Amino acid sequence: MPTNATHAPGLRSWVQGANAPGCDFPIQNLPHGVFSPPGGAPRGGVAIGDQVLDVAAALAAGKLKGAAAEAAAEPSLNRLMAMGRDAAAELRAALSALLAEGAEPLPQLLHAQSAVTMHLPTEVRNFSDFMASRPHCARLGVKRDPANPLPPAFHHLPVAYHSRASSVRPSGAPLRRPWGQYPKDGAVVFAPTEAMDFELELAIWIAGENALGEPTPISLADRRLFGFGLLNDWSVRDVQRYEMPPLGPFLGKSVMTAVSPWVVTAEALEPFLLPQPARQAGDPPCPPHLATTRPDALNLQLRAAILTPRLRAAGAAPHTVTDTPFAGMSWTAAQMVAHHTSNGCNLLPGDLLGSGTVSGPEDGQEACIAELLLRGPIAFPNGETRRFLEDGDEVIFTGTASAPGFTTIGFGECRGEVLPAHASVT
Amino acid sequence: MPTNATHAPGLRSWVQGANAPGCDFPIQNLPHGVFSPPGGAPRGGVAIGDQVLDVAAALAAGKLKGAAAEAAAEPSLNRLMAMGRDAAAELRAALSALLAEGAEPLPQLLHAQSAVTMHLPTEVRNFSDFMASRPHCARLGVKRDPANPLPPAFHHLPVAYHSRASSVRPSGAPLRRPWGQYPKDGAVVFAPTEAMDFELELAIWIAGENALGEPTPISLADRRLFGFGLLNDWSVRDVQRYEMPPLGPFLGKSVMTAVSPWVVTAEALEPFLLPQPARQAGDPPCPPHLATTRPDALNLQLRAAILTPRLRAAGAAPHTVTDTPFAGMSWTAAQMVAHHTSNGCNLLPGDLLGSGTVSGPEDGQEACIAELLLRGPIAFPNGETRRFLEDGDEVIFTGTASAPGFTTIGFGECRGEVLPAHASVT
Repeated sequence: MPTNATHAPGLRSWVQGANAPGCDFPIQNLPHGVFSPPGGAPRGGVAIGDQVLDVAAALAAGKLKGAAAEAAAEPSLNRLMAMGRDAAAELRAALSALLAEGAEPLPQLLHAQSAVTMHLPTEVRNFSDFMASRPHCARLGVKRDPANPLPPAFHHLPVAYHSRASSVRPSGAPLRRPWGQYPKDGAVVFAPTEAMDFELELAIWIAGENALGEPTPISLADRRLFGFGLLNDWSVRDVQRYEMPPLGPFLGKSVMTAVSPWVVTAEALEPFLLPQPARQAGDPPCPPHLATTRPDALNLQLRAAILTPRLRAAGAAPHTVTDTPFAGMSWTAAQMVAHHTSNGCNLLPGDLLGSGTVSGPEDGQEACIAELLLRGPIAFPNGETRRFLEDGDEVIFTGTASAPGFTTIGFGECRGEVLPAHASVT
Repeated sequence: MPTNATHAPGLRSWVQGANAPGCDFPIQNLPHGVFSPPGGAPRGGVAIGDQVLDVAAALAAGKLKGAAAEAAAEPSLNRLMAMGRDAAAELRAALSALLAEGAEPLPQLLHAQSAVTMHLPTEVRNFSDFMASRPHCARLGVKRDPANPLPPAFHHLPVAYHSRASSVRPSGAPLRRPWGQYPKDGAVVFAPTEAMDFELELAIWIAGENALGEPTPISLADRRLFGFGLLNDWSVRDVQRYEMPPLGPFLGKSVMTAVSPWVVTAEALEPFLLPQPARQAGDPPCPPHLATTRPDALNLQLRAAILTPRLRAAGAAPHTVTDTPFAGMSWTAAQMVAHHTSNGCNLLPGDLLGSGTVSGPEDGQEACIAELLLRGPIAFPNGETRRFLEDGDEVIFTGTASAPGFTTIGFGECRGEVLPAHASVT
């Protein structure tokens, strides 16, 4: 794990909130995002404590310079991601120096996070979603085929599908309960869904570009990982189950996909890389074109909570339903890139990958409601129960990266509320 | 079928090539595209005969005016498509008047099609591919389930999947034979594909935009159809078969999707609209939210031909392997739009839909090699045979719209050659 001065646990910031224990955005993090200050236009920023550094303002004040900082100031980060990880690492060093304790405090370059509006970090041109958790596949595949719950290709490649780019939205966007077609009482109905679900995933933001026809080999695949976030792959289970054979999910997935607005860079996550988990006895070996000895697995802990209208009215906290490790996923983000480009498919800067539902093997690590329901309805501390989401329910994801001897960093939130369906679709 | 003076069969152009019998681009067509003249930058144009009208030059010369013409002159047609069909119809009337016999000949506004380079008509932000041919599904579904070859949802909705936008390319782009993983001799290999196929489809280009969460009802869905073209959904059958369960096609489809460069507008196709074919006895009724009595089916004839290296060396013509009607498709383009947006998914201007493989029920109407092979290897007039495509084979699609009393119009070509695979992927 190549770490440097920007990861040093003793490093503190002149932004006091960044030094608070448990803060998602200490100076060791420095994630990029796109925000609007009150009354202002969208622009690039960097989260620090409970503040946002206005990168354009820092450039104008002569406190940052260079092409990467200019790209990081733009209203979408595609061009920054096109510049690749070396440029991001250089910019990270400059940002760390600018914000470190001992440097000149520049509060005029900051906006309170509570006052700004966050946007999508990139113009998302393409979104592909993977399915890399063995426990997720095993739990949901049992209904399809109890003896062989995993897809035939599961151990040979990271199974994935192309998903919808136009419906990707930043955290906070409410989800309108969709209408859809599904079997009910012996007929196929067109009605509001009765099975609105979330999927807790890791968002993977792509750096650089490979020309169409030119794969990115596994040896270089980690250089295509600009950064990471949280992703809610909102899922309409009744619609999805009915429409899937044989071409896969369509309207069950394109209602919306939400992402957390801060892109935690691959550089920030270097202290948290682990060797990939060993394959289980009886599994086939990893195919050579996807195999690497580089530690590419990320030591993250991800959480999903639900805030029901009754909990909200009572001023109670969201109820955590999922608390799950990421490092056990069967395929790493670098392997996803190598597989995705192995046929020559071109990944563009700012493209989005979803890791797939990050379910672990234990109770409480089920990262979607469809899995949680296998143990019965979800029970809330106030006595409420849920089978799938009801109108007014809000889903909140959080996540952290931690390792002995390093400062824990976080992802912020990915949250969204379910709104009632339209009365009709005509 | 609302037709007007622009469709009049007696109408002729001062561009003499447009009046030649069998020309794809008579003055009744007037498709939009994006081209570069020799040494020039990409810009919008309109095909007329064997020429391209330079829309920017026509604006500069004061021969066209208005916002739609300005949008049609841009290096991508997204903004024109955003303006919708009324704007396109108005522009069509102006283009027809400009190019009609009797108007002042303006050869200085033309470029020979043979001299220009064609580009993608839009920046394709999203590409969804449908599967709307019953014969296609029936032929290929028999292996999966002889008693129920059609997907369960086939009669209830137009089955579709999200496909890859970044790998959409204009006609002429060569296809590098991809590597991929598939079962062979009892193992899963990673090797160049042995099953490179084409799929002959109709390209559907989207007009206007619906906000996320707001469906476009079937009553308005035809207003979202800006225009049409030919689409080759290049398919890697061995890879596709292996990777599909349960999430659908991925690397089997993202090697490349090719489109013909000229967008034949919905306005140009108004004389060729037919009532949708009746459902077969025993089929369930069309769901009300997808039902319309408007004639939305298109009376098109589409063709696929293969030019092998030996045919090319002999100066022989491409061998037609598929000649198939479009009007028998089980779902119309308007129904595809209504279904796609029924969950609130937003379709953006310039988005691309594929109709799915346009196979008819008869021999010779199979619109991909996987279907053609059910009758044995493809036999060429020179004695060659094919099971799937070999390196150097070129696939050429053409198509026409015709109706009694109207001038036949065409789509131009969608063509591409298979290049040899890379020696390795590392």
